Amino acid sequence: MRSLDLNKELDRILDFIRNYLHSSGFEKVVLGLSGGVDSAVTAALAVRALGRQNVLAAMMPYVSSHPDSLNDALKLAEQLKIEARTVLISPLVDYYFDEYDPQANSLRRGNWMARLRMNVLYDLTAKEKALVIGTSNRTELLVGYFTQFGDSACAFEPIGHLYKTEVWQLAALLGIPEKIITKIPTADLWQGQTDEADLGMRYAELDEIIYELTELDLDLAGSLNLKYPREQYQKVERMIRASAFKRQLPPVLE
Amino acid sequence: MRSLDLNKELDRILDFIRNYLHSSGFEKVVLGLSGGVDSAVTAALAVRALGRQNVLAAMMPYVSSHPDSLNDALKLAEQLKIEARTVLISPLVDYYFDEYDPQANSLRRGNWMARLRMNVLYDLTAKEKALVIGTSNRTELLVGYFTQFGDSACAFEPIGHLYKTEVWQLAALLGIPEKIITKIPTADLWQGQTDEADLGMRYAELDEIIYELTELDLDLAGSLNLKYPREQYQKVERMIRASAFKRQLPPVLE
Repeated sequence: MRSLDLNKELDRILDFIRNYLHSSGFEKVVLGLSGGVDSAVTAALAVRALGRQNVLAAMMPYVSSHPDSLNDALKLAEQLKIEARTVLISPLVDYYFDEYDPQANSLRRGNWMARLRMNVLYDLTAKEKALVIGTSNRTELLVGYFTQFGDSACAFEPIGHLYKTEVWQLAALLGIPEKIITKIPTADLWQGQTDEADLGMRYAELDEIIYELTELDLDLAGSLNLKYPREQYQKVERMIRASAFKRQLPPVLE
Repeated sequence: MRSLDLNKELDRILDFIRNYLHSSGFEKVVLGLSGGVDSAVTAALAVRALGRQNVLAAMMPYVSSHPDSLNDALKLAEQLKIEARTVLISPLVDYYFDEYDPQANSLRRGNWMARLRMNVLYDLTAKEKALVIGTSNRTELLVGYFTQFGDSACAFEPIGHLYKTEVWQLAALLGIPEKIITKIPTADLWQGQTDEADLGMRYAELDEIIYELTELDLDLAGSLNLKYPREQYQKVERMIRASAFKRQLPPVLE
C-alpha cells in the first residue's frame, strides 16, 4: 500500500477546500454528518479550512437508522462547534413507498434515502448560499459503493483521493473521537448493513487490491505472487468496471 | 445556424439508443414525460429504437403544475402506446417545506421537485431493470438551464447534442402532436414560468448565439457584424461559463 505523509496531505486538502470555495465565490459548505468516519473527517477538514462558522452539518436520520449514528454525529458537531440541523427523512421515504410500492426492497429504499438526503443538502445550500462538500473516499468511488445522484452528489470531493484506510489515519490526526474511528463502517441504509459484508471483503484488503490494480497497474493474469486470493482481485476488477458509468457524465452524441 | 440532415440524425440517434442499452445489458428505459417537447421527442425516439413495450413513462405532476402538462403527456403516452404511471409529487414537496421552511422561494421548491422526480425515475429503473433515458437538449445543457442531479440526471442523453430549435424540427418529423410542438416552453416549476423569460431571450436567438460561440469559435471582441446585440452574446458567454460546474464531475485531488 502507498504511504502518505499525512501532515503534507492535510495541508494539500485544506488548500484544495479553500481554493475551490474561493474560485467559486462561496464561503460556506454544507455536509451530511452521518456519524461515520468519512463525514466526520470531512467536517473537521472544512472547519480547519474555512472556520467553524462556515460549516453547516445536516443530520438526516431515518426512523430505523442506528441511534448511534445520530448521537455520534451530534456529539461531533458539538465538539467541532458547528451548527447542526436535523431533518427526519422518514415521512418522505415512507409516504412514497407506502403509496406506490410497499413491496420495495431495502436497496430501493436505501437509494431513495441517499437521494433524498442529497435533495435536502442542496436545498440547504440554496438557502445558505453554500456548496455541498463531498464525503466520498477513493475506495467507495472506485468500486461504485455509493448511490449515483445520492451520497456522491457534491461540488467537490476533498477526500475522494484517499483510500478508506487512509481516511482512518487522517481521522486520528484530526482528533476525531475514537468511537467514530473504530465503529464498523456502514451506510446504515438498513438494519444490520455493513460495508464489508456488502463489499465481500475487509477494507484493508480492498484498498490494497485497488491500489495494486489502479496505481501499480498490476498485470493480474501474469502475476504469480499475489497478496490475496486471485478471485478477490478479479472481483474488485469487476466492481471497478461495472461501476464505471457512475463515475462518468451521461454520454452525448458527437 | 448549422443545418442538420434530420433523417440521418434520426438514424444516428436510434443507433445510439440501441447501442447504449445493448452495451449496458438493458432492454428498457424510463423517462419523465412532462408534456413538453423534449421528453415527447425522447419518448418517440425510444419507442422507435426499442419498441413501445420497452419504454415506461412517468408523469410526476405537482398540484400547481399546469393541467395541460399532465394531459398532454398522457395523450402522448396513449398515442405512442407506452405504459404511463402517475406519481403525484405534491405531498413529498409540501411536507418538507411546510415542516422545515415554509418561506422557501419558488426556485428552491422548483429544484426540490426536479430532484424528487429524479428520485422517482431512478426508483422505477430499479424496479423495472431499466435505465433513465435523458431528455435534455444542447441549449439548456450549455447555458445550465437545468437542475443539477435533477432533470439532468440520466444514463445517457439521446438529444443532448441537439439545439432546442432542432428538437422542434425533429418533433415534427416524429409526428409529435402540434399542440406539444407549439406550446410555450416551460419547466413548469412554478406558475407563469417560461423558459424564454427565465433565459432572457428567444430560443432562436439563444441557439444561434451558442452555435456561433461554441461551434464557429466566434471572436466576440473582434467581430463587428454581429447578428444580435453584443450584450446578448456576452450574456450567453457568461451563462456558459457560470454553469460549467454543472457539466463536470466533482473535482478530486491528484
